[in-house]
Amino acid sequence: MKRFFYPQSVAVVGVSENPDNLGRNIVNNLVEFGFQGDIFPVGPKGGRILHLDIARRLEDLPSTPDLVVVLAPARVVPSILDACGQMGVQRVVVESGGFSELGPEGQRLEDEVRQRLRQYGIRMMGPNGLGAINLEIGLCLPFMNLPHKPRLGGLSLLCQSGGVGTNVIAWLAQAGLGMNKFVSLGNKLDVNENDLLEFLLDDPGTSLIYLYMEDLADGRRLMELGRRARKPILLHKANIGELSADIARSHTASLAVDDEVVTAACCQAGILRVHSRNEFLQAAIALQQPPLKGDRLVVLSRSGGEAVVTADACHKAGFKLPPLSPEIVQLIESRSRAGVIKPINPLDLGDIFDFSLYADVAAAFCQDPDVDGIILNYGPINDLEREAARAMAKSLIASARRHEKPLLITVIGSLEERDYFRHELGVPVFAFPGEAIRALALARNYYTCQLPAAPVVPPEISSLPAVQSLLAPHLDSPGPVPMSVALEAMATLGIPVPGRRLVASAEEAEEAALALGLPVCLKLVAPSALHKSDMGGVLLNLASGEAVRQGFEAMAQVARTHLPAGEPWQVLVMSFIEKGMEVIIGAKRDRVFGPMILFGAGGIWVEVLEDVAMRLAPLDLAAALALINQTKIARILRGFRGQGPSDLRALAHCLVLLSAFMLEFPQVQEVDLNPVRVFPEGQGCLALDARIIVGAAAS
Amino acid sequence: MKRFFYPQSVAVVGVSENPDNLGRNIVNNLVEFGFQGDIFPVGPKGGRILHLDIARRLEDLPSTPDLVVVLAPARVVPSILDACGQMGVQRVVVESGGFSELGPEGQRLEDEVRQRLRQYGIRMMGPNGLGAINLEIGLCLPFMNLPHKPRLGGLSLLCQSGGVGTNVIAWLAQAGLGMNKFVSLGNKLDVNENDLLEFLLDDPGTSLIYLYMEDLADGRRLMELGRRARKPILLHKANIGELSADIARSHTASLAVDDEVVTAACCQAGILRVHSRNEFLQAAIALQQPPLKGDRLVVLSRSGGEAVVTADACHKAGFKLPPLSPEIVQLIESRSRAGVIKPINPLDLGDIFDFSLYADVAAAFCQDPDVDGIILNYGPINDLEREAARAMAKSLIASARRHEKPLLITVIGSLEERDYFRHELGVPVFAFPGEAIRALALARNYYTCQLPAAPVVPPEISSLPAVQSLLAPHLDSPGPVPMSVALEAMATLGIPVPGRRLVASAEEAEEAALALGLPVCLKLVAPSALHKSDMGGVLLNLASGEAVRQGFEAMAQVARTHLPAGEPWQVLVMSFIEKGMEVIIGAKRDRVFGPMILFGAGGIWVEVLEDVAMRLAPLDLAAALALINQTKIARILRGFRGQGPSDLRALAHCLVLLSAFMLEFPQVQEVDLNPVRVFPEGQGCLALDARIIVGAAAS
Repeated sequence: MKRFFYPQSVAVVGVSENPDNLGRNIVNNLVEFGFQGDIFPVGPKGGRILHLDIARRLEDLPSTPDLVVVLAPARVVPSILDACGQMGVQRVVVESGGFSELGPEGQRLEDEVRQRLRQYGIRMMGPNGLGAINLEIGLCLPFMNLPHKPRLGGLSLLCQSGGVGTNVIAWLAQAGLGMNKFVSLGNKLDVNENDLLEFLLDDPGTSLIYLYMEDLADGRRLMELGRRARKPILLHKANIGELSADIARSHTASLAVDDEVVTAACCQAGILRVHSRNEFLQAAIALQQPPLKGDRLVVLSRSGGEAVVTADACHKAGFKLPPLSPEIVQLIESRSRAGVIKPINPLDLGDIFDFSLYADVAAAFCQDPDVDGIILNYGPINDLEREAARAMAKSLIASARRHEKPLLITVIGSLEERDYFRHELGVPVFAFPGEAIRALALARNYYTCQLPAAPVVPPEISSLPAVQSLLAPHLDSPGPVPMSVALEAMATLGIPVPGRRLVASAEEAEEAALALGLPVCLKLVAPSALHKSDMGGVLLNLASGEAVRQGFEAMAQVARTHLPAGEPWQVLVMSFIEKGMEVIIGAKRDRVFGPMILFGAGGIWVEVLEDVAMRLAPLDLAAALALINQTKIARILRGFRGQGPSDLRALAHCLVLLSAFMLEFPQVQEVDLNPVRVFPEGQGCLALDARIIVGAAAS
Repeated sequence: MKRFFYPQSVAVVGVSENPDNLGRNIVNNLVEFGFQGDIFPVGPKGGRILHLDIARRLEDLPSTPDLVVVLAPARVVPSILDACGQMGVQRVVVESGGFSELGPEGQRLEDEVRQRLRQYGIRMMGPNGLGAINLEIGLCLPFMNLPHKPRLGGLSLLCQSGGVGTNVIAWLAQAGLGMNKFVSLGNKLDVNENDLLEFLLDDPGTSLIYLYMEDLADGRRLMELGRRARKPILLHKANIGELSADIARSHTASLAVDDEVVTAACCQAGILRVHSRNEFLQAAIALQQPPLKGDRLVVLSRSGGEAVVTADACHKAGFKLPPLSPEIVQLIESRSRAGVIKPINPLDLGDIFDFSLYADVAAAFCQDPDVDGIILNYGPINDLEREAARAMAKSLIASARRHEKPLLITVIGSLEERDYFRHELGVPVFAFPGEAIRALALARNYYTCQLPAAPVVPPEISSLPAVQSLLAPHLDSPGPVPMSVALEAMATLGIPVPGRRLVASAEEAEEAALALGLPVCLKLVAPSALHKSDMGGVLLNLASGEAVRQGFEAMAQVARTHLPAGEPWQVLVMSFIEKGMEVIIGAKRDRVFGPMILFGAGGIWVEVLEDVAMRLAPLDLAAALALINQTKIARILRGFRGQGPSDLRALAHCLVLLSAFMLEFPQVQEVDLNPVRVFPEGQGCLALDARIIVGAAAS
């Protein structure tokens, strides 16, 4: 990837003298951003722009360029690639649109392009993106005007959309945040975010990486890179709901990914998920500070009201505001009129006009080992004190840097002062203290995320071959596996299921019930009886042989009423279990991330409480317990208010088995065990219902 | 209140020629903001500032000023009020600090001030605030420099803190939002937010009111004003947790209010609660648009990526993006190259350089009765198209105004264009489309909040006198009422409680259990047995006489081990109830808002799920049902997934009874009925435990 970012010469194909020509902007940006290598404009009409001759064909160039940027109609891109290949060009950026985002015709064009890349060994960015920027060498390839140029810094950005990307660049410039590299990826026909991320993780100029993505190329590789990263990765995954599905497809040919899966994957891989560009900008300011080592903050405020607002934000974000140390209390009391300054945290120095006291207090905070971070609400009350206030701020910034303390500054009420910090001191500041605290909370999430040192090693599951024989007849037919088979498969896998029998008459039903032990429940089993309880296909707590017989007759009636004529049906007799908390255990296979295992509050609580957590397979016992502990009901399951603990190990074991099952059977799209009843510690659990859905055959 | 905002003459007490003098700033602000009435500087040293003579004493002024502003040391304020009173001044603003926010000494000074106000019939703003601004007449009383002056508009602000207030003013100016009136209230010794709110509700210049409050004067009056309001009230209630309690007290002498109570009260009174100034600024932009009549939006975007981001935000906020009408589809298809523009919603017109198509599409949206609001993501790709893009935007703004459609504009990537909208067109814009959508969602909350037309009329509760006789002996002792009395009181009130008896021996226990019917539970009753289950003072599900006798002996052992020596104890025998969903019914008395009734998921779920809603007393049956329906478990209680509905009317009746109880007994601070078991419709409910806490005697 490095050769995309550090070329010595760049050819721009699709340039003309016409003032509407967009290729001109690329040449213009290269010149404006100070690119020092050779710039070769190319366009069939020739001519001159910006003192540079426009070559009519690539082949006319004096030497082979390191990088070729193409902004020509989509249909001619394959022939341009031919020219590139024949000249020995190895890196190409295609900014033209008109490919798969427009439908099947563009898709065919992409196939042609793909073939050329293979043929010539070319790596390509795009199409339908703005290409790359590298501020280190003034490389700037987008075809848009970039009126706001950020200073050189450590942030590198990977944006699937060019519009979103250029908006971020403008905001970086305005906020005084420094940028290093930028790529607008477009359709990701060849180079994708993972290729670039891998490069940026080792790029010395990059200290923080932001990704705006509408689609993810390969979830598992992204997670692997996340786990390896020694610098923060902030992922803004857009295209999260059905409202954006159409526009994302027609914009960058992106398909939707299950949003909860992305959240779970980020959490597991140490990737910080942000939900807006504003959140990214705020977090970036906090993450460029020295690392936060704990949650004890001090607040130094020029306004009492802003001190209150700051304390509220700390309360919401779970930060502590410990009392000031005796030394600092003494310092304040010795230097202010009695009672005017209350030596508490947050500290309101609004009525003090002696700025040397601010500086001394701030210096003491910087040296205090019990202070993890400093929040400054800064604002001069009038012009007279501006210089003294600025000097104080400068000394505090230097002191915080020296002692490696995070220092977050909000400038109150004065746009001039804000610009002074941002642009004169190069220190990005916040507009409101609440934003500073929320940003610090995001940074804390990054610093406190403890990734497991060793990879998960799932145990060998010896029951899988037996499950294979049982399921094999059903794995080629998409749709739900028959309920009785699903229960049998889970039981064979090793997940406890209550005693049960399939019966075809009232007499068999009674006999089965007496053999299993009363009470029992009955379930109608038939291909079209999916929503059993809605049609009356479930009867619970039948406590006598008579009730079971009558129950069977009722099922027969339901079958006659609700099933298509002639559809075969049976009745499952199963021990009725009333005790134990209800949980749900499930699995689903994500297009991008693969199999996910889920756990949560079960039964009727699933949809009402939405208390469900997810984790990517494979799971071992430790990972399964961690998954359980992500839910709210885990607090109850661990033992709560006089109730003893439930059998968490038994649940965790089921999760591990299900994870192995999903990895073994790629045809299985979804599994639902709901409810699973869990009993007190040592007494296990029982899955009362099982649903297995087979998807289209895995390719 | 009007006389504070429209004086013809203003005296400023505490002015000198000294460049550090803060009173000078007030005079300066009056001049700078263009106040046309008389300005009288007053200060003991005399002299001249800004071509105005400084009078040495108020009495030396040529006439009685309509308004006197005081920025003199706290200790001389009472004598200044004497002078005002003797001159017939009726409106005073005190900006000086040094009152109750500093402790008991300042408290005494406030008493002296209060006495003067009564004596002379003076109304006063402050102390410890910045006073008022009225842009209509250039009145500007704060003693701080205000470098950023907003244009005249419809927003009026009531801010308890001056620092927070001036920061908001700066942001209004930057965002291009117009302001009308402003008050920084300070300690609210006399004039409080409700007095001002009442005035602003009828003030023709004010169309939207923002309150920043660290303490609330009178919750019930605030709610009454909220219900009456015909313009949006946005409340930013700060000082919400223990971290801000100290600083708020020392800053504006504010005590904390229970934050959940504030939320419940706002919801009941149609007051929009915002949690930050940024949220207020965004909401204010949306609320200045024509009212939103539904949730169907169209998105018109200059960038595909921004269209995706916008659609995601709509998804999260619950807005709909219906398909474009056939007329608009046809319009687009007739005017663009085939396939380049996909006629979907959100509509990406990024590749179109014919801005007249934008204008025509936008005009069609404005006229479409199936479109409730329009979102425009605006941004010129280069300088060449700037003029055409601006003309399109202007025509869209005019068209949206004509058709009374809300139009929210985000400017992408260009600060110049943003400033053009804000300052040249006077149209505030958003930085990111996600912010526009969130702001519109806040506006929707305002427009869809349906306040009950008629006030709540609670029914007469005939059982109250009997409850009175029962509770009377306990109402003077702060702390918990004995459990058996609490249960009895609730039963007498009319809340169903299981059969129960107090016993003192194992034999009595067995006899009681047999009389009540097995199974039963036992509870230890003693003054210090508050956390009964933690100490083993509760035994459930005792199903035989033998088990009951043994249970009693176990209780005796617990009493010997855990209770202070000699403390009397008894055992309550109560029918054991296992069926029914567990809910909690409770009440608490808030310092500012009075009695609140609460309902939620009960038993062990209370702390884990935190699914509890609140409503202010009084309740009638309709209000009680509305309260129940605010919780998540209401979905289960109403009947869910094959489970029949629970007896909601019985629960609602209990809530109404508890509301009457709280109004009848002001000594009661808190009531907890947890758990209450609710049975299927028509079968009622039972409170299994009751806790009543008496507070300090009501004054």
